[in-house]
Amino acid sequence: MTSIAFSPDGRSLISGSKNGTVQMWDVETRQPIGKAMSAGQESDPISSVAYSPDGRTIASGTSKYDKVWLWDAATRQPTAQMAGHQDDVTSVAFSADGKTLASGDLGGRLWLWDIMTRQPIDQMAGHQDDVTSVAFSPDGKTLASSSIDGTVRLWPGPVAWREQLCAKLSANISHQNWDEWISPDNNYVKVCPGLTVLDDDHQR
Amino acid sequence: MTSIAFSPDGRSLISGSKNGTVQMWDVETRQPIGKAMSAGQESDPISSVAYSPDGRTIASGTSKYDKVWLWDAATRQPTAQMAGHQDDVTSVAFSADGKTLASGDLGGRLWLWDIMTRQPIDQMAGHQDDVTSVAFSPDGKTLASSSIDGTVRLWPGPVAWREQLCAKLSANISHQNWDEWISPDNNYVKVCPGLTVLDDDHQR
Repeated sequence: MTSIAFSPDGRSLISGSKNGTVQMWDVETRQPIGKAMSAGQESDPISSVAYSPDGRTIASGTSKYDKVWLWDAATRQPTAQMAGHQDDVTSVAFSADGKTLASGDLGGRLWLWDIMTRQPIDQMAGHQDDVTSVAFSPDGKTLASSSIDGTVRLWPGPVAWREQLCAKLSANISHQNWDEWISPDNNYVKVCPGLTVLDDDHQR
Repeated sequence: MTSIAFSPDGRSLISGSKNGTVQMWDVETRQPIGKAMSAGQESDPISSVAYSPDGRTIASGTSKYDKVWLWDAATRQPTAQMAGHQDDVTSVAFSADGKTLASGDLGGRLWLWDIMTRQPIDQMAGHQDDVTSVAFSPDGKTLASSSIDGTVRLWPGPVAWREQLCAKLSANISHQNWDEWISPDNNYVKVCPGLTVLDDDHQR
């Protein structure tokens, strides 16, 4: 739960306000960069902001709203409102490779999101009260969360999750399935490097 | 304000409890490492924990106590209780080079600490209410803070502070002064690389 974050190059800072906006600032001049990014109602405080490690994406959670917002850091335009949480979002964190976002909510639940497809990867329940912080281990194998319930929980991170998924599969999905299930707008990714790719013709 | 932090190598996690203790965990086995580190009274929730970038030092702030604790991560023994804050500590953060710690308090004040000497470098006032987060820019030139007062403030970071100090000096302090003013237990550091070192004989 942090409401300020420096960009990885240190040139800009983002801050979440009490009025539902995220503002980017020029660190050198101390001036705002562009208009405030509106991520909710005026009465919705921004609970958490995060910069992706490559500096291209900003994520924010709002403490009176159940969606996780993604922003293009260059244009400061929203690129996604990821829906899934049934309670207000308290905390967001990127994995070190920037491919995954974790978010926690007031209901004690955690969600993992794929940044490229903007789709949920998994959700996790266990905490009995508000999630207060989420953090990835540097290798992406573990996600940690803390809660007002007084416990710290460790979960499989995106790398472990991918390893578990690939252990159950016999091949990567075909390019055609990728276009149908994910989006033709996203370049095909061989999610399980050790497995072959299903032949597109074989699918028809 | 975060109550969990992974070690830089990802092998351990530290968590601050509601009962005045900091616990280290083995990420792989999910078991506690050693006993809980007691950093306050049982009624004092730990507000914030941080791992130094080299993984050797842990810092913690307690929400009902005005001192910042430092711990040896290897032995889990306290190495310093840094005094200065007149209000409870809400947040701690290491600079990227690990040499400086920033802390914020419920009175809206910020302190910068030298990790090697465990002495305060500077204190900064300006916020009208609780400091909620502190963060250093990656280059160490800027410290950012957010507050319940709704403002984000930018301050000179340790690098800028050192540049300003060195611009006012004509030489580095002598080795003898270092031993007297800092400590003979700390190796001499030429704080201002562009300046000469005062001759020890010259001082006598």
